Amino acid sequence: MSGLRMTLEAPFDDVLARVQDALATEGFGVLTEIDVQATLKKKLDVDFRRYRILGACNPGFAHRALQHTLEIGRLMPCNVVVYEEGAGTVVSAVDPLQTIAAQGEPAMTPLAEEVRQKLERALAALARDLA
Amino acid sequence: MSGLRMTLEAPFDDVLARVQDALATEGFGVLTEIDVQATLKKKLDVDFRRYRILGACNPGFAHRALQHTLEIGRLMPCNVVVYEEGAGTVVSAVDPLQTIAAQGEPAMTPLAEEVRQKLERALAALARDLA
Repeated sequence: MSGLRMTLEAPFDDVLARVQDALATEGFGVLTEIDVQATLKKKLDVDFRRYRILGACNPGFAHRALQHTLEIGRLMPCNVVVYEEGAGTVVSAVDPLQTIAAQGEPAMTPLAEEVRQKLERALAALARDLA
Repeated sequence: MSGLRMTLEAPFDDVLARVQDALATEGFGVLTEIDVQATLKKKLDVDFRRYRILGACNPGFAHRALQHTLEIGRLMPCNVVVYEEGAGTVVSAVDPLQTIAAQGEPAMTPLAEEVRQKLERALAALARDLA
């Protein structure tokens, strides 16, 4: 899979504590959070690594996209996953060019490119913050 | 856009009240819910139609997918949007064949097909329930 992904040499809890601030620097609020480990334990009684799915939304871009294509909410928010990987932590964001821009609506492409750049910058800010 | 979409001749509130039960018949729990209208009002002070984004997850399928491709959480849960359309209500689900199966991982395709069928059956159950 391609996308926006990086491995940080920082503990899971530290990354999780800072990722929301990093996303906020680019105007993303975290509207949803799924604790995958806890959900799989509760529903299936299986053990899984620590893994969160954060739903990041930049309201201005979301509004523009919805005004153009009402159905595009099916692909919102942009998920950012955070999970343990050895002693480090992976942060990986969905690529809007592979979701929002891949629905056969050419007008969505420049908007998805802008959102992608914002996600890239937010991840870069997170990496600097934890360096 | 293609996908799993239907327009119901039922009020928004009635559809919203029943969609979770319909999804549950196929093993989907709703893990997240975004009130788009309220979010856009709060963040941008703009008026928007009533619109919810429900994050539906079938834990067994989610676990299978994550075991195969850890990054696939970026495309979870499967969103089901519910919004006002005139006097009726539109229900539209993300098509897993366009998201989970479109990441260049052939092993995801049969799994995405099963999830798609489950979403189709859940939407059909909702339509029968509200008929």
